[in-house]
Amino acid sequence: MSNFSDLIDGYYRFRGTEWLEERERWAELAEGQSPRVMVIACSDSRVEPATIFGSRPGEIFVVRNVANLVPPFETGGGLHGVSAALEFAVTVLKVSEIVVLGHGACGGVKAALAGNLKDAAPGEGGFVASWISLLDEAREKVIAAHGQGEEGQTALEQEGVRTSLKNLMTFPFVKERVEAGELQLHGAVFAIKDGKLRVLEGDDRFEPA
Amino acid sequence: MSNFSDLIDGYYRFRGTEWLEERERWAELAEGQSPRVMVIACSDSRVEPATIFGSRPGEIFVVRNVANLVPPFETGGGLHGVSAALEFAVTVLKVSEIVVLGHGACGGVKAALAGNLKDAAPGEGGFVASWISLLDEAREKVIAAHGQGEEGQTALEQEGVRTSLKNLMTFPFVKERVEAGELQLHGAVFAIKDGKLRVLEGDDRFEPA
Amino acid sequence: MSNFSDLIDGYYRFRGTEWLEERERWAELAEGQSPRVMVIACSDSRVEPATIFGSRPGEIFVVRNVANLVPPFETGGGLHGVSAALEFAVTVLKVSEIVVLGHGACGGVKAALAGNLKDAAPGEGGFVASWISLLDEAREKVIAAHGQGEEGQTALEQEGVRTSLKNLMTFPFVKERVEAGELQLHGAVFAIKDGKLRVLEGDDRFEPA
Amino acid sequence: MSNFSDLIDGYYRFRGTEWLEERERWAELAEGQSPRVMVIACSDSRVEPATIFGSRPGEIFVVRNVANLVPPFETGGGLHGVSAALEFAVTVLKVSEIVVLGHGACGGVKAALAGNLKDAAPGEGGFVASWISLLDEAREKVIAAHGQGEEGQTALEQEGVRTSLKNLMTFPFVKERVEAGELQLHGAVFAIKDGKLRVLEGDDRFEPA
Repeated sequence: MSNFSDLIDGYYRFRGTEWLEERERWAELAEGQSPRVMVIACSDSRVEPATIFGSRPGEIFVVRNVANLVPPFETGGGLHGVSAALEFAVTVLKVSEIVVLGHGACGGVKAALAGNLKDAAPGEGGFVASWISLLDEAREKVIAAHGQGEEGQTALEQEGVRTSLKNLMTFPFVKERVEAGELQLHGAVFAIKDGKLRVLEGDDRFEPA
Repeated sequence: MSNFSDLIDGYYRFRGTEWLEERERWAELAEGQSPRVMVIACSDSRVEPATIFGSRPGEIFVVRNVANLVPPFETGGGLHGVSAALEFAVTVLKVSEIVVLGHGACGGVKAALAGNLKDAAPGEGGFVASWISLLDEAREKVIAAHGQGEEGQTALEQEGVRTSLKNLMTFPFVKERVEAGELQLHGAVFAIKDGKLRVLEGDDRFEPA
Repeated sequence: MSNFSDLIDGYYRFRGTEWLEERERWAELAEGQSPRVMVIACSDSRVEPATIFGSRPGEIFVVRNVANLVPPFETGGGLHGVSAALEFAVTVLKVSEIVVLGHGACGGVKAALAGNLKDAAPGEGGFVASWISLLDEAREKVIAAHGQGEEGQTALEQEGVRTSLKNLMTFPFVKERVEAGELQLHGAVFAIKDGKLRVLEGDDRFEPA
Repeated sequence: MSNFSDLIDGYYRFRGTEWLEERERWAELAEGQSPRVMVIACSDSRVEPATIFGSRPGEIFVVRNVANLVPPFETGGGLHGVSAALEFAVTVLKVSEIVVLGHGACGGVKAALAGNLKDAAPGEGGFVASWISLLDEAREKVIAAHGQGEEGQTALEQEGVRTSLKNLMTFPFVKERVEAGELQLHGAVFAIKDGKLRVLEGDDRFEPA
């Protein structure tokens, strides 16, 4: 496992190999980015979108937070980190696709499913509880159908992606472009255990890619 | 440049090579993550922490948002995505180091420096404007010393990292662990153009790694 | 062909691969060097002793000058760069072997054989002329036996190595240790063209290694 | 650690792999060398320029002596090994860059800093003492500012490089070409301990590459 000094070693490896081999590409990238896809993924250390999708620097604009959540459109009350990234990706970079990428064994989903942090104080689980309250509605639906066991976990990982996709559509600048056919939204879940990627198909089911 | 169907191709390449070669490691990872480092990086498509640091799946817990910002500790008013990730990384995963990773040619920093989005509506730059207001204090300091040109841009990329590091220390559960020697905070800036990583040293200057 | 910026790239490659892989060895080397062999080789860009002998950092102490020459022991008159290196290698590092490594297509030997720089001014060949006058005696002997053609060139490359070996023995601190069996002297010539290394054998002939 | 018979083994490894793989390149190299860079480095066994710079045979013309020193231009009094190599590299090979490469933990610099060999006889440190007297001026300056401890050692390693660069400019054929923009001079110091290369920048400071 790496600590910061290992990461510095890793930087030297990168700088001494990949960077040099793609020096010209990096010079181009320094001029500006023009990714075509935005990916919203979990902060989980096992779910690097660039690794899972084999993308190269410059190809995907990435937001990562606990449980790959997108809050709904809301203009008041404080900072909106995901909304800012979304606004930048859609209206400035003009990405043509957004992917919400969930994953198996997600700690955030697990906490949502368990529901045992509800009264935790900030710093003792309270921030996580508040954040994953975005899954409250999905949670109820999932528990009713699948319970709180392993099946419920998988179902909520998928339902969470659906929730974020729905929330994306509450942003006027997203909805408008989707309806104009300029922007596509995708959902996917990566199961760490068997390395399988399931993609949300037209009929609202997750199917292996 | 990739679109979603290219990413699916990329997934098959990953699944057909790296995943298979490390199947056992993935089986272990499915049991749970235990990263030692949390990285807060920008959503910019050119700045993949796992690429720059050459880290492997499971090694770094990653938050990515516009301009790699950490808001200060605050308990009221809405959702706190970064705070939730921070709480999870520090109190549950018990990472021992946090790295704030800035980068050259940062669009968020550029917008902060220009200051021309101040009155933009949500969806027209307003979300970004509100988010990067986290840099307001840093911005004034930087403009006074370096102006709004290229030198100011570089200075604000660095000052933004310092701001996030300061904000990290406003979280009681961070401050406490830092003071107990259980948690270390680091700042770094990756210059895309020449591929150089500068690290914040003890005397508050960024020096090449 | 490399210029300085290519060498900096090369440094990053080295630092990001070999250096990291042998980090522990480098930490040991930082404590001090203890090479067992001193090599006196030509400055010629094609004759890297570490490449030809496949040695690792820390293994050979290397002097490189035009035509791999060792001036005779002399205490007066100016600086003695080779003598200083020799003194350090033999009396401080206590190397147990010294190798004089000549090579094919040597420009210094060629100039010595041609003898056309005799009256050149410093900066116009005068420094080289003065330096290769160390080969004057060898030159006369070689021309008498082999002429000034290709055969003479090869012969003088070999005879030059013999000259340097003889000059090494004029240093009291070398002679003494050689006679005490504590130090061995070797001569070799690397032919660039066919990649053959010829070693000076007991009977004073150069034979393929 | 290697002795001469290990070096012969190493030669066979080189001849049996790298040489064979680059046979055509070696055939070309046999026709003549045309390096673009001259490197003046220390004889120290840990500081192989070709390793540190990852250069290939034919790319760098190399002088190696104790403490990587260049004596000033001087036409009288004996042999001038470095001057001969310099004359050959600049006026015949027409290199376009010269790099003076110092290094950490340099024994020659250490002896210069200590100053305890001043009255040593030839063969007992006298040759080294005389050679490193080239650092006398640098030594005084460094001791005044940094003392004779570790800080002084690092400072003198750097100041020694500056001294050699200054001495290079005393050669009319160097000065002339530098002023005509045909030749560039560079200074660098390789720190063995952390593998960091520091390069002399325009403002006369050594900065990580």
